[in-house]
Amino acid sequence: MTMNSRLTGVIPPVLTPLNIDGSVDVASLKALLDFLLEGGVSGLFVLGSSSEVAYLTDAQRALVLEVTVNHVSGRVPVLAGVIDMTTPRVIEHAKVAKELGADGLVATAPFYTRVSDVEIERHFRGIRAAVDLPLYAYDIPVCVHSKLSAEMLIRLGSEGVLAGIKDSSGDEGSLRGVIIARRNSPALENFSILTGSELTVDSALNMGADGVVPGLGNVDPSGYVRLFDFVESQRFEEARQEQERLHRLFKLVGAGNPERMGPNSSAIGAFKTGLMLQGVFSTHLTAEPQVPLNEEEIAVVAQHLEQAGISVALSA
Amino acid sequence: MTMNSRLTGVIPPVLTPLNIDGSVDVASLKALLDFLLEGGVSGLFVLGSSSEVAYLTDAQRALVLEVTVNHVSGRVPVLAGVIDMTTPRVIEHAKVAKELGADGLVATAPFYTRVSDVEIERHFRGIRAAVDLPLYAYDIPVCVHSKLSAEMLIRLGSEGVLAGIKDSSGDEGSLRGVIIARRNSPALENFSILTGSELTVDSALNMGADGVVPGLGNVDPSGYVRLFDFVESQRFEEARQEQERLHRLFKLVGAGNPERMGPNSSAIGAFKTGLMLQGVFSTHLTAEPQVPLNEEEIAVVAQHLEQAGISVALSA
Amino acid sequence: MTMNSRLTGVIPPVLTPLNIDGSVDVASLKALLDFLLEGGVSGLFVLGSSSEVAYLTDAQRALVLEVTVNHVSGRVPVLAGVIDMTTPRVIEHAKVAKELGADGLVATAPFYTRVSDVEIERHFRGIRAAVDLPLYAYDIPVCVHSKLSAEMLIRLGSEGVLAGIKDSSGDEGSLRGVIIARRNSPALENFSILTGSELTVDSALNMGADGVVPGLGNVDPSGYVRLFDFVESQRFEEARQEQERLHRLFKLVGAGNPERMGPNSSAIGAFKTGLMLQGVFSTHLTAEPQVPLNEEEIAVVAQHLEQAGISVALSA
Amino acid sequence: MTMNSRLTGVIPPVLTPLNIDGSVDVASLKALLDFLLEGGVSGLFVLGSSSEVAYLTDAQRALVLEVTVNHVSGRVPVLAGVIDMTTPRVIEHAKVAKELGADGLVATAPFYTRVSDVEIERHFRGIRAAVDLPLYAYDIPVCVHSKLSAEMLIRLGSEGVLAGIKDSSGDEGSLRGVIIARRNSPALENFSILTGSELTVDSALNMGADGVVPGLGNVDPSGYVRLFDFVESQRFEEARQEQERLHRLFKLVGAGNPERMGPNSSAIGAFKTGLMLQGVFSTHLTAEPQVPLNEEEIAVVAQHLEQAGISVALSA
Repeated sequence: MTMNSRLTGVIPPVLTPLNIDGSVDVASLKALLDFLLEGGVSGLFVLGSSSEVAYLTDAQRALVLEVTVNHVSGRVPVLAGVIDMTTPRVIEHAKVAKELGADGLVATAPFYTRVSDVEIERHFRGIRAAVDLPLYAYDIPVCVHSKLSAEMLIRLGSEGVLAGIKDSSGDEGSLRGVIIARRNSPALENFSILTGSELTVDSALNMGADGVVPGLGNVDPSGYVRLFDFVESQRFEEARQEQERLHRLFKLVGAGNPERMGPNSSAIGAFKTGLMLQGVFSTHLTAEPQVPLNEEEIAVVAQHLEQAGISVALSA
Repeated sequence: MTMNSRLTGVIPPVLTPLNIDGSVDVASLKALLDFLLEGGVSGLFVLGSSSEVAYLTDAQRALVLEVTVNHVSGRVPVLAGVIDMTTPRVIEHAKVAKELGADGLVATAPFYTRVSDVEIERHFRGIRAAVDLPLYAYDIPVCVHSKLSAEMLIRLGSEGVLAGIKDSSGDEGSLRGVIIARRNSPALENFSILTGSELTVDSALNMGADGVVPGLGNVDPSGYVRLFDFVESQRFEEARQEQERLHRLFKLVGAGNPERMGPNSSAIGAFKTGLMLQGVFSTHLTAEPQVPLNEEEIAVVAQHLEQAGISVALSA
Repeated sequence: MTMNSRLTGVIPPVLTPLNIDGSVDVASLKALLDFLLEGGVSGLFVLGSSSEVAYLTDAQRALVLEVTVNHVSGRVPVLAGVIDMTTPRVIEHAKVAKELGADGLVATAPFYTRVSDVEIERHFRGIRAAVDLPLYAYDIPVCVHSKLSAEMLIRLGSEGVLAGIKDSSGDEGSLRGVIIARRNSPALENFSILTGSELTVDSALNMGADGVVPGLGNVDPSGYVRLFDFVESQRFEEARQEQERLHRLFKLVGAGNPERMGPNSSAIGAFKTGLMLQGVFSTHLTAEPQVPLNEEEIAVVAQHLEQAGISVALSA
Repeated sequence: MTMNSRLTGVIPPVLTPLNIDGSVDVASLKALLDFLLEGGVSGLFVLGSSSEVAYLTDAQRALVLEVTVNHVSGRVPVLAGVIDMTTPRVIEHAKVAKELGADGLVATAPFYTRVSDVEIERHFRGIRAAVDLPLYAYDIPVCVHSKLSAEMLIRLGSEGVLAGIKDSSGDEGSLRGVIIARRNSPALENFSILTGSELTVDSALNMGADGVVPGLGNVDPSGYVRLFDFVESQRFEEARQEQERLHRLFKLVGAGNPERMGPNSSAIGAFKTGLMLQGVFSTHLTAEPQVPLNEEEIAVVAQHLEQAGISVALSA
């Protein structure tokens, strides 16, 4: 599994199924991996925000990565999130991920603490220096409350510190700056540009992005793969229609009642429900302290699936 | 060390001294503990934000707590921060802290992920149910990007879930709501209310807070103890003057150049410099990826110390 | 009405009563002015945030100021808010306010647009240069989304550009920096420092603030005057008790249902209801597009008044 | 000039040229209008954020609109911004705009004050009821600090309250929700969807947006018209290249030193400089209290123009 070329295609952030006691549901995880690979994904990103990495203990993180690497067995690259507050803690996760066979690492800027742009850059340099694996920057201001600048990404990409970017910033203008810079820079030749904005994938690909990391891709991997293929083959109208179908499907993230649930439990809970309803997951549970979707809300998710043409195997 | 009564007085968040290689400087840590105890503090809070807990690996966290508990040997209560993103991860830290002999736990709301108020409440209940130690809520929106409501604090305090609050929200009106609620509620009799707002300690104590957790208290513990004692003995004018001296001293947190350094490295770096200049710490280094104060900035810190009447033992 | 000395005491931001058709209810406004003056206030601030200045047309602003200046007739100073987005628009309001006889002007930083600190400073200098009236800076980040720095306030105060500050930032540590700077600076001798933090007035006064601009002071002016007098006469325990009573009363701002109402309509609507229930206002209406409190919510306000010992003249 | 059909194409937010004394430079304004019309724009939006509407007095607003309506003389529709804090103040601007011959109104959500979603909706309904002109919602969270929900836009569009949206939110996923809803709703047939995101115009148009309101379109109107035409004629590769050229040109907004200038003065100042350098404007000045670009910064703008193939008429 070499990473000397760009990552492309659909690389979903793999959800982490849970048993009722909160432990990782390994059987469901394997079922999800099969479901995604059969859907045609070209890579897997475990231990990301959609994987509830923030909720998993270190042992659970290791278990998820180990199961995934073994189960996937080199068929596609496996990226591992190494999400933690600062450089020293991220490096510890990165060492474990390397040992367990990850093909690449995905790290955010520091969070909880407040650092300067200079310090964010030192952070990525420090991780890369400590662990010899391709390192992808994860730009997700909604979680870390800072934005990675295009200038820094270009600089670290050109120097080989970063192998790419997973952009969940929603700032398409900034992302485009990185794409444009890559066009004229041999040093950025293999710099991968992936978007996490699952509602505008066609736009990002048409701009020049290489692929997408869609949370909703867990629920409908073949939909995202079709979308990617349509764009690749310049069938723009069909791409647009597929993206619009997925946009409508995405409304399931609003199934949870905001008086009880936060944006995270509502969205991840709905994705998990979508997999339970398709027979892939045994439960739709999210990690503590998140509130699970109730029966009524599960039914709303089922409706969204059916409207998007996804057959619901289990009775809600 | 029983905690059936309120925590009171000055309970500094203990800085974590580092060696040049980034490891914990145990000798300097012990020196700091002695410095604080000699200064008259009534408790110690290790592994808080000012302790650079976000930067410490789990092994370093354990080392700091172990050294502290052993060195303090019951002379004052030792609270341990169990700072992590979500309930499962916090509980792991909490179990370690209990094993290592902490007298109480300090936990924030979840961060990185976005949760509802209902889920924040479940978070504290989950921690308390999992580990049998007094649990203090740490309200620090600048780090976790949510605010704990007075209503929730009062409810969890009344039910015995929370033993108290360390308030670094800067929202004195909200804090006061908790203080007022306590006056008329026997169930809150032993609920400790500590402020982290080190520039308005006299105000908080006069409102009815029990004590203070001042980062600057590392640099000048006896100053904060004097301030507390002045208020206790109703010597308000002297309290005000002492607080104003400490307010001026606090300006050292601005010594770092904001083009290079974030608010965290500038403030903590200045505190550490203050201890190095007083001969307590061997270095003024902060953890990676933070930028350290340079010679010029160290000299600025020295000036602030001298202006506040603190003698500088080492040449800057 | 000279303003060569500091403003002190209770200077409420005067609510603007409205008729059912949205016009200013002049009779109720005069009744409020009488109610406030009888309550012992030492100044009046019209056209502030609590006055719904953001909702008043220029003609309504002029009417409110004119009625107030004439009705008050020099008994206390009348400050006029000149709230608008930028310097040129603020200067226009300021010229009108001077013509109509305001004793001082109150201006925020620019808003809607995003400016630098340098430009904020130019803003205050530009207003002061254009209109010869004492100018008070209104620090209200919740509305304008920037914070005035203590350094700038001290500089502009020392140079005579600003006559004082009305601080509604909630950042008591920063405010204290201005207070401390004033102690040692003859150039700041007459610089007025007023807090808008109505729940911690005793704290602010004990720090050295000169007075308070409490929205709740419309509903209970004599309560705030008592609080001020208790602090002045060093009866700290009585001050604390009075502040705690007002803190409990302040809960009326939560009477409005947040599903229908914003923080502004809920708080101002409750204050107006409080005045209607005391027979001062004819209606409790707020300006468009704000939603008014309904009958049930009006009853909640009435309960809060009664619990605070304020007799309710009208049946809710 | 009927507006019974959608607005399409390039509708730049017209900059407001200023004389050295801060007055509107009418001759330069007419020159800009000619420059834009010759560039092929299909509409004009005066008194928007890029027009420095926040800085213009009411008399200046009226002058700008009057000059524009007269000079354009019906060749393209003229939309007028009616930017103010709340409904009553916006309605006053709207009445003036109607009198002066505007073809449509553009209004934001309330700002300065904090309102609920229900109140935002009442705001738009109130404006539309008061003044009989097509009303466009201006979604610009960076200025007003709230986001218009897709649900509300769809509802108000379907009911005929809103004639369209000018989206400067940067939230392309949300905008797409409105576009998708329009596809299947006859009631939204004539609802215009315009993007203000000038760096991703091809993306927005390909999604189904009708046009663009680009601040940079003042500097290079024919570039944006070419971009629009390329997309219309499905010459996607040329569209992408043109958009990338404009993306590079957009970097001129960073010419101003952030230590002196805010984001607004830097960007608008650079646009104005671009027009001065092309001989359209007499000065590059922005309104008070904004800091103007200095000689060095003007030279940087000139470089960006030249790199984008725009000839610089005047020596910088």
